[in-house]
Amino acid sequence: MAGVLALGFAAFLVSYVLRSEKGSPRMQEISAAIQEGALAFLSREYRILVIFVVLAAIVLGVIPDLGWLVSLALVFGAVCSGLAGFIGMNVAIRSNARTAAAAERSLNHGLRLSFRAGAVMGMSVVGIGILGLSVLYFAFHNHDDFLKIIPGFGMGASSVAIFARVGGGIFTKAADTGADLVGKVEKGIPEDDPRNAAVIADFVGDNVGDVAGMGADLFESYVDSIIATMTLSMVAFTATLASPLAPDAATAWHLPMMIAAGGILASVIGAFLVRVGEKAEMGALLGALRRGTFAASILTGLLSLLAIELLDVNIDVFWAVLAGLVAGVLIGESTNYFTSYTFGPTRRISDASQTGAGTTVVTGFANGLMSTLPPVILVAGAILIANHFASIYGIAIAGIGMLSTLGITLATDAYGPIADNAGGIVEMSDLPPEIRERTDALDSLGNTTAATGKGFAIGAAAITALALMLSYALAAEIAQMGTGGIELVDPEKISLLNAPVIAGLLIGAMMPAVFCSMTLTAVSRTSHSIINEVRRQFREIKGLMEGEAKPEYGKCVDICTRDALREMIVPGLMTIGAPIVVGFVLGKYALAGFLIGATASGFILAVTMANAGGAWDNAKKYIETGFFGGKGSDAHKAAVIGDTVGDPMKDTSGPSLNIMIKLMSIVALVMAPVLVDVNGIFD
Amino acid sequence: MAGVLALGFAAFLVSYVLRSEKGSPRMQEISAAIQEGALAFLSREYRILVIFVVLAAIVLGVIPDLGWLVSLALVFGAVCSGLAGFIGMNVAIRSNARTAAAAERSLNHGLRLSFRAGAVMGMSVVGIGILGLSVLYFAFHNHDDFLKIIPGFGMGASSVAIFARVGGGIFTKAADTGADLVGKVEKGIPEDDPRNAAVIADFVGDNVGDVAGMGADLFESYVDSIIATMTLSMVAFTATLASPLAPDAATAWHLPMMIAAGGILASVIGAFLVRVGEKAEMGALLGALRRGTFAASILTGLLSLLAIELLDVNIDVFWAVLAGLVAGVLIGESTNYFTSYTFGPTRRISDASQTGAGTTVVTGFANGLMSTLPPVILVAGAILIANHFASIYGIAIAGIGMLSTLGITLATDAYGPIADNAGGIVEMSDLPPEIRERTDALDSLGNTTAATGKGFAIGAAAITALALMLSYALAAEIAQMGTGGIELVDPEKISLLNAPVIAGLLIGAMMPAVFCSMTLTAVSRTSHSIINEVRRQFREIKGLMEGEAKPEYGKCVDICTRDALREMIVPGLMTIGAPIVVGFVLGKYALAGFLIGATASGFILAVTMANAGGAWDNAKKYIETGFFGGKGSDAHKAAVIGDTVGDPMKDTSGPSLNIMIKLMSIVALVMAPVLVDVNGIFD
Repeated sequence: MAGVLALGFAAFLVSYVLRSEKGSPRMQEISAAIQEGALAFLSREYRILVIFVVLAAIVLGVIPDLGWLVSLALVFGAVCSGLAGFIGMNVAIRSNARTAAAAERSLNHGLRLSFRAGAVMGMSVVGIGILGLSVLYFAFHNHDDFLKIIPGFGMGASSVAIFARVGGGIFTKAADTGADLVGKVEKGIPEDDPRNAAVIADFVGDNVGDVAGMGADLFESYVDSIIATMTLSMVAFTATLASPLAPDAATAWHLPMMIAAGGILASVIGAFLVRVGEKAEMGALLGALRRGTFAASILTGLLSLLAIELLDVNIDVFWAVLAGLVAGVLIGESTNYFTSYTFGPTRRISDASQTGAGTTVVTGFANGLMSTLPPVILVAGAILIANHFASIYGIAIAGIGMLSTLGITLATDAYGPIADNAGGIVEMSDLPPEIRERTDALDSLGNTTAATGKGFAIGAAAITALALMLSYALAAEIAQMGTGGIELVDPEKISLLNAPVIAGLLIGAMMPAVFCSMTLTAVSRTSHSIINEVRRQFREIKGLMEGEAKPEYGKCVDICTRDALREMIVPGLMTIGAPIVVGFVLGKYALAGFLIGATASGFILAVTMANAGGAWDNAKKYIETGFFGGKGSDAHKAAVIGDTVGDPMKDTSGPSLNIMIKLMSIVALVMAPVLVDVNGIFD
Repeated sequence: MAGVLALGFAAFLVSYVLRSEKGSPRMQEISAAIQEGALAFLSREYRILVIFVVLAAIVLGVIPDLGWLVSLALVFGAVCSGLAGFIGMNVAIRSNARTAAAAERSLNHGLRLSFRAGAVMGMSVVGIGILGLSVLYFAFHNHDDFLKIIPGFGMGASSVAIFARVGGGIFTKAADTGADLVGKVEKGIPEDDPRNAAVIADFVGDNVGDVAGMGADLFESYVDSIIATMTLSMVAFTATLASPLAPDAATAWHLPMMIAAGGILASVIGAFLVRVGEKAEMGALLGALRRGTFAASILTGLLSLLAIELLDVNIDVFWAVLAGLVAGVLIGESTNYFTSYTFGPTRRISDASQTGAGTTVVTGFANGLMSTLPPVILVAGAILIANHFASIYGIAIAGIGMLSTLGITLATDAYGPIADNAGGIVEMSDLPPEIRERTDALDSLGNTTAATGKGFAIGAAAITALALMLSYALAAEIAQMGTGGIELVDPEKISLLNAPVIAGLLIGAMMPAVFCSMTLTAVSRTSHSIINEVRRQFREIKGLMEGEAKPEYGKCVDICTRDALREMIVPGLMTIGAPIVVGFVLGKYALAGFLIGATASGFILAVTMANAGGAWDNAKKYIETGFFGGKGSDAHKAAVIGDTVGDPMKDTSGPSLNIMIKLMSIVALVMAPVLVDVNGIFD
């Protein structure tokens, strides 16, 4: 029902977006080029994913312990995830020119339009997620293998997500870096200048990476957290025990759904609160978005309480929800502190830019490392509190609490690239500079909210990955639910002092580092191709620099598409393959250690990269507002280099890590029935 | 006995060094300035450490569960560690001018002298380590509290080490960066130019950071690994059980000593093999050092086997030693692959320099992340194999195996800064350029061997930290030794699925990141002060740039000393305080998780930083040999920025992490008797 509400609201927003002005013919022309490139990328990407999903489905289908229903769930999850990304991106590519046109009228119109377009993505994600899970529930909840089927859905969603996030992430950052390095640095032409051959590819990248990739990413966060809660609670009830927390099995299943639904309702209401006056500055813009998200959080808390009362669940569960919700909000605040230039840390990076790029990079990186402190403490605290009140079930439910306001957070996140695109279109359409200023204000706000959204997504990913690990431990019969909570089947083996667990933990901790290395390298390689292509066009196309000839935008889009899709394959397959290899070689206990190690190190790396990247970006922007010499000064050049370093970290590697840690956990969960009797070589 | 042998060999080397030519008066003058600064720093540093050690001793003394003998051991450990660093540095500061003079004669003379001077440090460290532990053993081995006293020695050594490493590391990198940024970049004068006010501070830094700091660092590695083995085996035997591995308690105590002694003997022999022909190139130099270390490794293996046979210990223990030894050698090789410019990864960074500093930094960082793969797999493998053959005792013994050739590895490591100093003295004394070429060859070789040594030190640190964590678990009565190996006291609590363990693990994983952030920031801040001072002197001292006036070298040394000592305090105290806070607040089980999380994440971060830093440095050197435009090209400028970023990572933060993870484990071990009955708030 909530799913229908979300999709209904999405439809309403779509009609609002489509009804608004399309902008001048020039704007429509640019927008059409972006649409073409984005859709071409997505269709090629989905073609590759179809092959992968079909193969994975066959493999799962033929494994006797799993079977075809698991395959079916996998395919269904993949389709839902793809759909969520597709809808969101389709709206985004239709709203960039419209946002530009709206910004011609006023800042408020621009904000409203871009935000509502972003909200479509948010609502689609949660709507499709809830509907998809409900379909599975009603179809199979009496089936014996229900607990095997449900994780299949998550694995489908996560697989699509990792490829979409990595592929899209590589595309967007390679195009961005390539365009900037040749255009801004070598040729000295402005950002988004139509003479730059990579500029359309850059716009396309915003849509395929920051919108479609992120949609798939958050879809899987959402779905996985619900799945983790469901499997944990179902195991508790199928163990034919009366839980001290909830009166019956159906309730334990309905509760996460209802909390999620409450979050959606709260997000819808919050979304209506996002509006600013005509002569708004940055502060007012940020205030408007924060009003929306805060209101949504408080409402979610109240609705969760209501749900818990209605279902007659033990009130202790509410404290777990609240722990997650509060931790999420505070993580957002701490991210804001470490990445916004209204605070010290980012300003210190701007300051360090005066002594060159080296100190800029070191200071920014140090800032990113330090920024891990609050989220880790908050997540650890939420886990302890949730566990205290509602055992491991509480940990999963805290994850849901943190993610419940996803609808609006995602909207504040997805509107960023739309505003960015709108700005580009304004630049390329020779509109007056004050319009560009308005879209710039929107874009810059987008950077801050995107950073906040990322912090929150990473925290939620860590909790969800842990909850999935716990579900895995139950499914792999490492532990079982007893009257007093979890009971260990072979306590020595899962002890922290057991060598295979320790070895698995170390190997797991290494995985995110290797994964980041691969994705960073992929961006470098792809941007190298783009740089060469843009340089070639400036060299070979006569009259390009003078504005008498047009560059071949399509070539750059093609190169990005080809390279990004090629580069996404190895990191994606490695993520899916690693837990399987560890499970079969070192055994199911080592795999549990592996998952925890990966979650801990992935969490740290992801926060570091996201916040270092966000802070470098804003440190550059701070200088651009006139400090330390302003635009064009040596400090500014150093800050630009910092930003270049941070770009692939914050937009490719960092966010992909979120998916990575959950995907590994869910693969382990899906494979758990097969691993039950596997002995590791050192067991 | 072996300790005496090591110290005797050290004395022989000292006499060799002191007998050789002192160099020209100008060279002696510079050397005297370096000596003065280095000794001044060390004496001020030790004064601070005395205060800390006395306070810590009082605190431990008044705790009823610990007592004054633990305090005594702490003080003794601190004194031994300080002594090892002091002797090594004293020789180093006396051999820099002598090395310069020897290099005037030939490359071989230069290598021999600098290497033997470095070997003094190596031999002092192992000699004092073994002697110190033996004294404690003979004095207290029949004392009831012996197992509480021994870790006190390690804590003393580790505490001194962390302050020395962090303080020295900040000093050396701040001075280096400050000198380079103003001298090379702003003023365009050569490296080590006498007009640069920070140049003497830079030389002093090499001695206090890279020699004294490293000595304290490796002293504690050595001592801690032996302590971990001893406590593990003593617990096994005091539990009045016949171990299946060794015939009696005394043997289990003598074995690690004998393996360590074998390693010393092997190192001595290996050291004699380090010599090159007169017209040697880089390859021959590297070959000479590798011959020495390889020979030492093989000999150590053979001697360990002998020791095991002599003591009539189960041969299975030998496989554990071998697993550590082999893993150590292979980690060295993999480090070499990721950091030497004879291989692809570093050349790719040079290649990336052509598209600017941004891509240089990203490529180098990606390389560092990727380089974690082999060491982690090797360490995990060594742990599994060692545990398979000799249970957790095997893990500790594998750590000893890895560290047993420390004498020679440390020598190859410590000679680097001596050669570096010698090069600087050559530059400042207006000697002919071919002499500088010789010292440059020595220096560049030192970079490669330093990187290898670091990789190996980090791997050994990770294993040692794990072994200490296991000792802690026994001491805190989380587990006890039973007939079949470890037996858990309360299995549910130490399970990987227990929320406090998970929360502890996450918090632990965060600690290295925060620690790195602090140390990186400290370097930035201190180098900022230096930059301002050097700029001021160029501005205010008339005729300085023209070479008519002399800069005030002492000012820069003072600033570095003051700032480095101030900045070392917080990271050091945090490292010591964190495990205590976690233990008392979250309980002893969470603390076990905390230690493992810190070890895993510290291992990854340390390898990443050390190897990224080493590779950036060498990528710059590769360009300087004439590739991609050579010295002065845009690619070179980008590579210099990469090197600036890497410097504090590889010489301050990365190596400090080694100590940090072991120090936290040993603090936990010392506090274990107090924590036995402490309940965490979420237990």
